[in-house]
Amino acid sequence: MPQLLSRALASQESVFARMSRLAAQYGAVNLGQGFPADAPPDFLLDAARRAVGTVDQYSAPAGLPALRDAVGADLGVDGADVVITCGATEALNVLALSLYGPGDEVLMLEPVFDVYLPQARLAGADAVTVPMTLDPVGGWSLDLAALRAAVTPRTRALLLNSPFNPTGTVFSAAELGEVVALARAHDLWIVSDEVYDELYFGERPVSLRSLAPERTFTVGSAGKRLEATGWRVGWIACPPGLSGMVAGIRQQGSFCSPAPLQAAVALSLPVARDSGFYAGLREEYAGRMALLAGGLRDLGATVYEPRGTYFLTALRPGWSAESLVERAGVAVIPGEAFYAQHAAPPGLLRVAFCKSRDDIGRALERLTAVPT
Amino acid sequence: MPQLLSRALASQESVFARMSRLAAQYGAVNLGQGFPADAPPDFLLDAARRAVGTVDQYSAPAGLPALRDAVGADLGVDGADVVITCGATEALNVLALSLYGPGDEVLMLEPVFDVYLPQARLAGADAVTVPMTLDPVGGWSLDLAALRAAVTPRTRALLLNSPFNPTGTVFSAAELGEVVALARAHDLWIVSDEVYDELYFGERPVSLRSLAPERTFTVGSAGKRLEATGWRVGWIACPPGLSGMVAGIRQQGSFCSPAPLQAAVALSLPVARDSGFYAGLREEYAGRMALLAGGLRDLGATVYEPRGTYFLTALRPGWSAESLVERAGVAVIPGEAFYAQHAAPPGLLRVAFCKSRDDIGRALERLTAVPT
Ligand SMILES: Cc1ncc(COP(=O)(O)O)c(C=O)c1O
Ligand SMILES: Cc1ncc(COP(=O)(O)O)c(C=O)c1O
Repeated sequence: MPQLLSRALASQESVFARMSRLAAQYGAVNLGQGFPADAPPDFLLDAARRAVGTVDQYSAPAGLPALRDAVGADLGVDGADVVITCGATEALNVLALSLYGPGDEVLMLEPVFDVYLPQARLAGADAVTVPMTLDPVGGWSLDLAALRAAVTPRTRALLLNSPFNPTGTVFSAAELGEVVALARAHDLWIVSDEVYDELYFGERPVSLRSLAPERTFTVGSAGKRLEATGWRVGWIACPPGLSGMVAGIRQQGSFCSPAPLQAAVALSLPVARDSGFYAGLREEYAGRMALLAGGLRDLGATVYEPRGTYFLTALRPGWSAESLVERAGVAVIPGEAFYAQHAAPPGLLRVAFCKSRDDIGRALERLTAVPT
Repeated sequence: MPQLLSRALASQESVFARMSRLAAQYGAVNLGQGFPADAPPDFLLDAARRAVGTVDQYSAPAGLPALRDAVGADLGVDGADVVITCGATEALNVLALSLYGPGDEVLMLEPVFDVYLPQARLAGADAVTVPMTLDPVGGWSLDLAALRAAVTPRTRALLLNSPFNPTGTVFSAAELGEVVALARAHDLWIVSDEVYDELYFGERPVSLRSLAPERTFTVGSAGKRLEATGWRVGWIACPPGLSGMVAGIRQQGSFCSPAPLQAAVALSLPVARDSGFYAGLREEYAGRMALLAGGLRDLGATVYEPRGTYFLTALRPGWSAESLVERAGVAVIPGEAFYAQHAAPPGLLRVAFCKSRDDIGRALERLTAVPT
């Protein structure tokens, strides 16, 4: 047989897929992978049922004009600057291929969302990560000095995520201002992963694009916003004039996004905004977060409450993700899954609360029963 | 602003997207891009309407188990060896990234389907093309001697397409046997793009996998088979044992394919097979092909009737795709779109007959009226 490429041999089942598999195997309550327990809203489902049979053939690679315009209107950018992708995962991959290649470095934070590192590798670039600081009492914070120190002449781009999976951090306008100053000083692109832009628990997050429109690519996800992670509709809002180049790379990946689902999302984005759907989602998730955080604290865990996303991080001596899924029947994601270049805080766990109140309650009961 | 990568700057709107855009601009009948005029079958649409609201969250990157099994049953392979992708376009991209990289060559034929070359480039490999022979009277044929001569020590893979877009060629078992012998002699992977496997007009095409299961990756497309090109559900049947590696690369692209549409295709593949849907499609398209071919011949064109696909190629002195869309209001694809390393046969056009009989008739009328 012909040889396999090292990059192919290095490709592995993601920890999210693995924990979901183990969860199924052990009959565990799955508080691991970030997909919601609730169904998508009816306005989205109805729109999709109508689009099926109507919008079934290829769209342009950049997306259905109606969806580009709807995303543009939602984000306050021109629809012509929007490129639709198969989820934010593909958006990030397209940007990796568009913005950095062999000899380049891309700077990101650790803990790191799992696709960032392999995507940089597939693009031929080197990922350089800067660890977030975890103060046992004060929680997570951005180490701006370390970020500045990590820039080299090879750095081409900064890849940030706010609200931040898994830490739940929402960066302040002041922090983002420093990031922009750094990017401007070294002429770096900014890739801003904002898939949780509507999932916040305090003030509305500041979008990096508002501070540096000339160099920021904003990544978003209908799957996260509308509770339909399997639909694979995401987007990139590009700096003016760059969407054609990005769409040119994007068409080599999956050509275009699922057309009937694009049509349904186009109709649903304004409905979601105008009907208060996002506010309702935040309220509901804030309640589930409180339930989970309180329960974990009662079990002796230190919980870092998120300012956004539908995950929280926690430390609890004696617990490990591997043993919890086997012995307690509760699947969570081990902190090490988010670290490749630095050591993970020992015992760190990411726990999802986009699950039903029943499941959260059941998981807490099972954890109460587990011997440590 | 930061610099742009040369590979990004080289990315362009595809000729298919461009001709569809020009068709809209000039109010032309669009016999260019390969998407069908007819709606997908009701059994597929009904299945999708039921899946929406039921199967809305991430599937595993390799695909919904029900769909992997349905594809496996349809092709006669184990579902465990199948990886679901966002269309055949993504399948081909995943294979490029999995099988060849910097320093490698991938061998393919010209005329070449448009994504093959940029995908090889994104993977870091060099594409080497061997031209098909076009005899003005006898039509298209494979130049096996030229193919053999093009193999170098750097060749890693052969990429073939049968039924072949745009030539309509279906390679014979004898020809494919020679291809397999070549691949075995030089230890090459075979990527076999069989998206038109059910769209043939003579004998059923031989699948390369049946001749070399140990090294052949078969690419397929629900979009082509079920007349739903916008749904983005495709697949790869891998040699035994390699699907995990391929799925590992695939998850970095779009993570997974649209879940409700995967579920609908899973239910529909056996229905399509058992109900004679594919046979009906072939019969219908054979009729439209005869209509188009006859009309073009009456207009003085030399037509090469395809043995498969829903395209035909034709030569007609005095016609060019650019002038036809502007002056006659008929969009077709210029032959040069399929050539990058060799000269296209002068005046070659690809004309699609997956369009309505009305549109084909209207196009022929318009062409009759055009001054040459
Ligand atoms: C930070 C972050 N970015 C991107 C994604 C991928 O989003 P999508 O499902 O739209 O591909 C996720 C999904 O969990 C995520 O957490
Ligand atoms: C030869 C060939 N391969 C692959 C594709 C892409 O198929 P899909 O729409 O499933 O991405 C096409 C589409 O025209 C094609 O003609």
